Amino acid sequence: MQWYLVAALLTVLTSSQGVLTTLSQSNGHYKYDYATVPFLAEVFKLAVSSLLLWKECQKSPPPKMTTEWKTVALFPIPSIIYLIHNNVQFATLTYVDTSTYQIMGNLKIVTTGILFRMFLGRRLSSLQWMAIVLLAVGTTTSQVRGCGEASCDSLFSAPIHGYMLGVLSACLSALAGIYTEFLMKKNNDSLYWQNIQLYTFGTIFNMARLLLDDFRGGFENGPWWQRIFNGYTITTWLVVLNLGSTGLLVSWLMKHADNIVKVYSTSMAMLLTMILSLFLFNFKPTLQLFLGIIICMMSLHMYFAPPNMLLDIPLTVKSSDEEKLLEVSVDRRPHS
Amino acid sequence: MQWYLVAALLTVLTSSQGVLTTLSQSNGHYKYDYATVPFLAEVFKLAVSSLLLWKECQKSPPPKMTTEWKTVALFPIPSIIYLIHNNVQFATLTYVDTSTYQIMGNLKIVTTGILFRMFLGRRLSSLQWMAIVLLAVGTTTSQVRGCGEASCDSLFSAPIHGYMLGVLSACLSALAGIYTEFLMKKNNDSLYWQNIQLYTFGTIFNMARLLLDDFRGGFENGPWWQRIFNGYTITTWLVVLNLGSTGLLVSWLMKHADNIVKVYSTSMAMLLTMILSLFLFNFKPTLQLFLGIIICMMSLHMYFAPPNMLLDIPLTVKSSDEEKLLEVSVDRRPHS
Repeated sequence: MQWYLVAALLTVLTSSQGVLTTLSQSNGHYKYDYATVPFLAEVFKLAVSSLLLWKECQKSPPPKMTTEWKTVALFPIPSIIYLIHNNVQFATLTYVDTSTYQIMGNLKIVTTGILFRMFLGRRLSSLQWMAIVLLAVGTTTSQVRGCGEASCDSLFSAPIHGYMLGVLSACLSALAGIYTEFLMKKNNDSLYWQNIQLYTFGTIFNMARLLLDDFRGGFENGPWWQRIFNGYTITTWLVVLNLGSTGLLVSWLMKHADNIVKVYSTSMAMLLTMILSLFLFNFKPTLQLFLGIIICMMSLHMYFAPPNMLLDIPLTVKSSDEEKLLEVSVDRRPHS
Repeated sequence: MQWYLVAALLTVLTSSQGVLTTLSQSNGHYKYDYATVPFLAEVFKLAVSSLLLWKECQKSPPPKMTTEWKTVALFPIPSIIYLIHNNVQFATLTYVDTSTYQIMGNLKIVTTGILFRMFLGRRLSSLQWMAIVLLAVGTTTSQVRGCGEASCDSLFSAPIHGYMLGVLSACLSALAGIYTEFLMKKNNDSLYWQNIQLYTFGTIFNMARLLLDDFRGGFENGPWWQRIFNGYTITTWLVVLNLGSTGLLVSWLMKHADNIVKVYSTSMAMLLTMILSLFLFNFKPTLQLFLGIIICMMSLHMYFAPPNMLLDIPLTVKSSDEEKLLEVSVDRRPHS
């Protein structure tokens, strides 16, 4: 499978995630415990990966699986980073409002680029760096609160701690992604075997979270396993399936493509969600959404288009074309 | 003189134009007849150009001057285009509000690029086209009406005629610029001689406009030449000097650089005006201004930076570097 098809599928599924989640609410409230959704999604991913690994084991050569403790011990780390991230997110929201938090969330695009360079040692051209910054600018533009909307002052008026925590949150979120990519590409192990390790720890962490919620609530509604499916509708199941599938696609991209592809996928999904919401929930089109879409499309093209397409130079430069390339460079500045 | 120094000077002067014009008002109103300002600016440009041509005539070889009627007859055309443009602008404003008109004004950046390609036959790379679109997107972003501001619906609710006239207005405004560039580069005539022709017609057209205003007003306040300096302060004179100087710089750029440079200059000036206004008139900083500035800076770099800087490839490609270039192209896509 080609990475861009997977990325496109991820975009569509991620954007339907937002729509499905909204549809799964009744009167703006969840009738089910939302914390059960990521838990069931982890279980789903674990089941699918186990099935696929089992099928792979039937074939020859059998899939490569590293089972030594030193390697397995690396797999709970993404879950631990997400756990820290969730707590930082919670702390940030005591200083800044959700809208400002959402705006700062776009920083994740840039921090992913930086950590991608720092920890995975992947070099990007100036043009690709600009494309990454533009992607963050484009998603932010689409979220600019328009005229007629209420409070405006919040964005530049939060205490400095709030912004610092927001930056930390963006770094942690990027770190989890970069670390997962490192983990998946570290060796030639079967993707499904790596997934099983990742999702086993994911399931355990999500289970622990449900249990913690129970302890905090004093088991008022009974233990989580007794009420796990309370309030579930077909839409809720679709949310679970969708979340599980997007997780599997992301893990495939981490193995066969990279974090930047994932970031583009999810950013495009955010815009697609906004477009779908216009039609489904009668939102008004805004100028900033339109501008944001143009900026993100340009960024996508800048990042992924081959340079010869962007600069109109032939892909393979022959000696006779030397002058031509030079001419292009010179031609970009007006004659003085 | 280098074109980028002239462009930078044009940016600074154009942005102070907005500030000076605001400062020349008393309580938000002009105490002088604003129509006299462009007239006096034309006279100023004509005087300066005449002086410079006279100095040029002292030197040898004497400046080249084409005086045949066929060439001179081309010089009133920019004034005629501006005259039509002003009327279209007036018609547009009967359909759309000023804010929407201002937003549509950014289309001029894109129409200038298109006419630049069509009429002057200048080729731009995909990257440069993207840069031009991004410049228009960036200036528009900075103008997005923020939360707390009044009416919002106007942008997408004007009648279709309004938008069509707005596009026509953007085309005419671009055409005037492109035509002037064609005129200035048509032959090797002295810039000052070309200026004299341009500004003589400009002076005549502005004088005709003042006279027309007098006829429309039934000469209630007497003829324009009797009250031309009424209400003038030092600031008003600075506005005149500034407008005249920017005109001279634009005409220099048309001869020695091109319309795209001018468009960048004036777009950057718009942003600079907004930044200056934050400090001078206590405007609140907005997220959209910040985003707009980032987008325009990226666009500037994309358009003017040499391609090898953007793609990290050496400027002169030697035969041994062929593979390297190919590698760069391949490296931009994640391995699948």
